Amino acid sequence: MTTQQLTQQIQQKKSFLCIGLDVDVTKIPQHLLELEDPIFEFNKAIIDATHDLCVSYKPNTAFYEAYGLKGWQSLEKTINYINQNHPEIFTIADAKRGDIGNTSSMYAKAFLEDLNFDSVTVAPYMGKDSVEPFLAFENKHTILLALTSNEGAFDFQTKLSGGKELYKTVIETSKTWKNSENLMYVVGATKAEYFTEIRKIVPDSFLLVPGVGAQGGSLQEVCKFGINSNVGLLINSSRGIIYASNGTDFARKAREEALKIKSEMEVILMKNN
Amino acid sequence: MTTQQLTQQIQQKKSFLCIGLDVDVTKIPQHLLELEDPIFEFNKAIIDATHDLCVSYKPNTAFYEAYGLKGWQSLEKTINYINQNHPEIFTIADAKRGDIGNTSSMYAKAFLEDLNFDSVTVAPYMGKDSVEPFLAFENKHTILLALTSNEGAFDFQTKLSGGKELYKTVIETSKTWKNSENLMYVVGATKAEYFTEIRKIVPDSFLLVPGVGAQGGSLQEVCKFGINSNVGLLINSSRGIIYASNGTDFARKAREEALKIKSEMEVILMKNN
Repeated sequence: MTTQQLTQQIQQKKSFLCIGLDVDVTKIPQHLLELEDPIFEFNKAIIDATHDLCVSYKPNTAFYEAYGLKGWQSLEKTINYINQNHPEIFTIADAKRGDIGNTSSMYAKAFLEDLNFDSVTVAPYMGKDSVEPFLAFENKHTILLALTSNEGAFDFQTKLSGGKELYKTVIETSKTWKNSENLMYVVGATKAEYFTEIRKIVPDSFLLVPGVGAQGGSLQEVCKFGINSNVGLLINSSRGIIYASNGTDFARKAREEALKIKSEMEVILMKNN
Repeated sequence: MTTQQLTQQIQQKKSFLCIGLDVDVTKIPQHLLELEDPIFEFNKAIIDATHDLCVSYKPNTAFYEAYGLKGWQSLEKTINYINQNHPEIFTIADAKRGDIGNTSSMYAKAFLEDLNFDSVTVAPYMGKDSVEPFLAFENKHTILLALTSNEGAFDFQTKLSGGKELYKTVIETSKTWKNSENLMYVVGATKAEYFTEIRKIVPDSFLLVPGVGAQGGSLQEVCKFGINSNVGLLINSSRGIIYASNGTDFARKAREEALKIKSEMEVILMKNN
């Protein structure tokens, strides 16, 4: 998917919501556990109930790997279901991978080609040759961890590195890499005051923003400092939407929560135009 | 496995060699491709031929994920084969994972509990709460990326952060984390001159050292600056051993290459005692 197609989808749906499919079988409705593939059935129901309200789905691979072979199968079925039924949706493999060059190529192939995700999250610690193999895929996107939404972000990411915070060095350096136009960045919503600084470095890039909702970030604050003329934001919510209820009404309740955020986004987009 | 058990194994085998099981089906002997699970059959033959010469096997998960479900199955079979037949071997899931706390817990469970690896490699960028979930497993080890063997290591890892290089900040900070006694560190062999500095910070910790052989690092140099009284080193070689031949003699040739390194290590250990 091109960035332009993503932007068009945002304008059409009046939403820049990304729903995190972080499925923990201990938290999903009990009645699903009787089915052959509870994780996929859960995702399918969530997708059926929300696909017109969001522009992106983001399964975090940890939640699938935790169930071994069966989990990997659920992930495959989920991405195939989205690609077949809702090809307009921007899909993100939240994998946070990164390795030496030839090894990163294997990860890139796995997520962007074989599983056919539109994008994958990547950790920057190993530098240029660990990220460029992901950037080589045309019309695919690499979402680089810049400033994450967790407490540990302050351990290294905000430490001064060459006179500026490491996350700024990461973003600035990444702009010099080959095919850097395929880069997006993870910036946590719990740190809204940093968006002004980040927009000075990457005014046009898309930012994937976790941490709204359960983790305490504010949608209004993030948009105030982070939105650009093409919107340029994908706001992720996981637990607040997918675990809105653990009864048989879970999909309907998930839709209600997604609709609340989508409506708030619609107002923001009207003001932004 | 405890660190003491690892050290005992090193003394008994007179080796601190780790063999990287990074299996690329385009590089393995053609005759294996006719079998049902070529990757596992390749690993099994390599393990059978080398287990008395090395103390550790390290499959890099990228090479398995690249083959989807089948690859994940080959990884499961490989770790089970090692655990059942050679329980003395220290196993490393070279996964370079790291995510926010509750998500890192899923990865930790997947690799350290379900697959039952002795250790897993973890990326430090997201800080304390992304690493501590791995450290919580008793008699398991978390191998933190400190200074990697690739060119991109110079992009961020060696940049000054608070007056010292980022990799030093990472190692020093990690020592304050809960259960930090379960930490080991990845330090690339291509940067032997850095070992002196690292040993000042973590004199007693085990260092996993990739980059000897195909990537150009020198075993002698690494040991000169990196060895401690408990050896404290695991030297990894992947391609140089497992792809020594792509004919029907591949396992025998792999053993020959492993034996060369092991013999060099035996001499080093004699001098070190």
